[in-house]
Amino acid sequence: MTNTLSEARRAELDTVAARADAAAAPYAATAPGERAAALVAVAGTLAAHAAELVALGMAETGLTEARLNGELTRTAVQLRLFADVVRDGGYLDARIDAADGDFVLGARPDVRRVLTALGPVVNFAASNFPFAFSVAGGDTAAALAAGCPVILKGHSGHPRLGARTAELVAAALDGAGMPDGTFQFILGQQEGVAILQDPRVRAGSFTGSIPAGRLLADIAAARPAPIPFFGELGSLNPVFVTPAAIAERGAAIAAGYVASVAGSAGQLCTKPGFVFVPAGHGLAAALSDAAESVAPHRLLNPRIAAGFGARRAEIFQTPGVSVLAEGELNEDQDGQGWATVTIVSVSAETLRAQRERLLEEAFGPLSILVEYPADADLAGLVAELFEGNLTATVHIGAGEDSAELRELVRVLSGHAGRVLFDGWPTGVAVTPAMQHGGPWPATTNDSSTSVGTAAISRFLRGVAYQGTPQALLPAPLQDANPWNVPQSFAPAGQSRSWGSAS
Amino acid sequence: MTNTLSEARRAELDTVAARADAAAAPYAATAPGERAAALVAVAGTLAAHAAELVALGMAETGLTEARLNGELTRTAVQLRLFADVVRDGGYLDARIDAADGDFVLGARPDVRRVLTALGPVVNFAASNFPFAFSVAGGDTAAALAAGCPVILKGHSGHPRLGARTAELVAAALDGAGMPDGTFQFILGQQEGVAILQDPRVRAGSFTGSIPAGRLLADIAAARPAPIPFFGELGSLNPVFVTPAAIAERGAAIAAGYVASVAGSAGQLCTKPGFVFVPAGHGLAAALSDAAESVAPHRLLNPRIAAGFGARRAEIFQTPGVSVLAEGELNEDQDGQGWATVTIVSVSAETLRAQRERLLEEAFGPLSILVEYPADADLAGLVAELFEGNLTATVHIGAGEDSAELRELVRVLSGHAGRVLFDGWPTGVAVTPAMQHGGPWPATTNDSSTSVGTAAISRFLRGVAYQGTPQALLPAPLQDANPWNVPQSFAPAGQSRSWGSAS
Repeated sequence: MTNTLSEARRAELDTVAARADAAAAPYAATAPGERAAALVAVAGTLAAHAAELVALGMAETGLTEARLNGELTRTAVQLRLFADVVRDGGYLDARIDAADGDFVLGARPDVRRVLTALGPVVNFAASNFPFAFSVAGGDTAAALAAGCPVILKGHSGHPRLGARTAELVAAALDGAGMPDGTFQFILGQQEGVAILQDPRVRAGSFTGSIPAGRLLADIAAARPAPIPFFGELGSLNPVFVTPAAIAERGAAIAAGYVASVAGSAGQLCTKPGFVFVPAGHGLAAALSDAAESVAPHRLLNPRIAAGFGARRAEIFQTPGVSVLAEGELNEDQDGQGWATVTIVSVSAETLRAQRERLLEEAFGPLSILVEYPADADLAGLVAELFEGNLTATVHIGAGEDSAELRELVRVLSGHAGRVLFDGWPTGVAVTPAMQHGGPWPATTNDSSTSVGTAAISRFLRGVAYQGTPQALLPAPLQDANPWNVPQSFAPAGQSRSWGSAS
Repeated sequence: MTNTLSEARRAELDTVAARADAAAAPYAATAPGERAAALVAVAGTLAAHAAELVALGMAETGLTEARLNGELTRTAVQLRLFADVVRDGGYLDARIDAADGDFVLGARPDVRRVLTALGPVVNFAASNFPFAFSVAGGDTAAALAAGCPVILKGHSGHPRLGARTAELVAAALDGAGMPDGTFQFILGQQEGVAILQDPRVRAGSFTGSIPAGRLLADIAAARPAPIPFFGELGSLNPVFVTPAAIAERGAAIAAGYVASVAGSAGQLCTKPGFVFVPAGHGLAAALSDAAESVAPHRLLNPRIAAGFGARRAEIFQTPGVSVLAEGELNEDQDGQGWATVTIVSVSAETLRAQRERLLEEAFGPLSILVEYPADADLAGLVAELFEGNLTATVHIGAGEDSAELRELVRVLSGHAGRVLFDGWPTGVAVTPAMQHGGPWPATTNDSSTSVGTAAISRFLRGVAYQGTPQALLPAPLQDANPWNVPQSFAPAGQSRSWGSAS
């Protein structure tokens, strides 16, 4: 990637990196109460400016007021949840090994370990979540909670909203007494790459397409000093419906399916892209009726509309594809695309034969119904057809259980970050147990999650202190435990039980 | 890197990967008690064959009987510690969020998350720890504990020991009922690369040099499906001694320093490479006497001896370097190098001026004493001169404390995985709180540790289950908790306190 940034722009970016670097130590040193209060202040300012921000978002993205209001609330809630995580301190994983003169390998020193902030992080905002995966979104909340300054690369699809949100976030952090440079905002692809390559930046995160995510992951890995890069990329989100589930609640499944594909015009990384149903399911009319009742929704921007149009055309032209609900895709006078829901169907055999053309994400309101024969080996199909996914879904009958079902669930858990039952994958709960990740190409790095409080770990690394005077230990490792964080202890004498046998 | 493996060799490696892949599901499904018993069986077989293995190790590496006996015990203890970790189950980080109809973002489903095995792992054995960082070493113990099959790429410096250890490990696992293919052994650089590139392999780990580690990390990152690669590479391990420490116990520090450099002929990744002492320290005679009393020790192999000789010559020829203890490096009739301890001294000013020549690891019994002036800014020197390190050490006087010392400790904790006081960095305790890692180039990936029980996390990824019937949940997430693992709960109603304010 040739970088054509001007000297002046490079100097500006150098200042951005220098400010983040200067903020790293004082920000990481903030006490839990202070840092939590700062996160709550950011949540508060978002809520206080909701009307202004949602209006900007509607104009720039075409998403609905209800959706954007919900997303803004979610974004504020995320920040509050992370404030709770910071106050609790369990995320520090504080471990204290007592000195042990009797240790089987010889006298063991006093060793204590805590997780600590990585340093400045660059987050790349997403097109499709202008709040929850953008300026003040999940990765920003997790990085700020971890004690890392954030440089936010705004998305070109909502630059004004991004800049305004960033202004509010920076002011809230400043008002809460956080160091200058704790949060900064930049725009521009080349600018994002330059910051990702800056040696002062210690991690990157991203939500977007597979090609862009791979490009950035490769840049992060190729640096003179490589850094972790957490890209959340594409996902096909397969869904499997058993005959018993169809028999019990076929109509509800059809309605839920179409609603999940229609929401936000299908521009969600968890949209169910492939729904496997038994041949003879009898849902065609219900699906087609439900799809046709969906009103047109503007797509995020003309580039996404064009991409969706091309993908949809390619699917229509693939041999063996039947159209259940054709849907529409029209351009308005401003060049924006408006779409309704498209559902096509194929046999499992066709999907296998046409995998090169069909097994790719369609970013927009389109989904493929896959009809499988009664004797299908669904677990085998998953292993054969699918790479990593963010989600995998199973609809079963009440109390249904079988060796085949267990094998399907096992294989799906190897291919996805979240396996869910009798629901739809869109709508990701922000909770301690959420996992939003998955093997490549769902993510570039499957060691953590980008939604839920476990996400804080991606911006931390361990440091051990050995034989350290109490006064020189970080607060979470001191015997006096001034921050009152959970500490786990390994007392002396533990090796007695197994030492002799080795 | 051009791969010139024969068709037949490629077919053999394909079988290795296929066996590991086939073992992945059944091995990951083993119950904690079974898997722990298998690890203990491996520990037991190592102990039972200690005499044979240590004799092989002495012949192939030149390390002493005492050192190798200690290392074998350590290796067995590591396996036993990980067996305890497996039985405890806390590493699974089982989280259960209750369904919550009142959740501020709308009804929250039942979500449960557990960490699960990544799949087959390739471990590259180290030259300098033929037991503890090789066939049955730390990464193997961690991967097996995590539920991942291991393909072990043996080191060319101890191929017979590697093959024999691998035979014992595989037999012990087999005897404990673990699946065929749970542990396999290969030799050869190109073979290692081919396995690292195999799509069925899901993670890599390595202990060795910066160039080799970087090469492998780049290969892992460039795969069509990138995988995590944990390389533990080089380290300079700076040590800082205050005037108060010298005044209190200068002689003991001199003796400890030389012993730490001499042990295993300095062929340890934690050898103190740069020891900063105040000008006028008065330790020259004690250091030189201690160094001259060290008997010659064979270096691991002729290649390492040649590398050490070249590095030592380069240091001798650098302007401003004074020789405190010249030491010796001689070749025996078999072409093996034998060395005693070399200590040279430079001023801090010379180190800054000659950083390009001096700031590089000397893998062998050589260390550089750096004399700093009374007004030196040690924290500033660290920030200016050092990249990431495995360790950083501080020797202080009893009760010593100052703003400068605190700043030094803070900067060192940003540059190293372990900060230790009043001791020497060689000898890494295997405990829950140990951190053996550090920012690049100490490691290729600083998100975990390669020593201590926290290492298990590098071979795990999170999977969430949503709305899942009890019978289809993995054991650690079931309400009945049949494995009796720690589960953390997020009850319903938690969002009431902050939901209203957003």
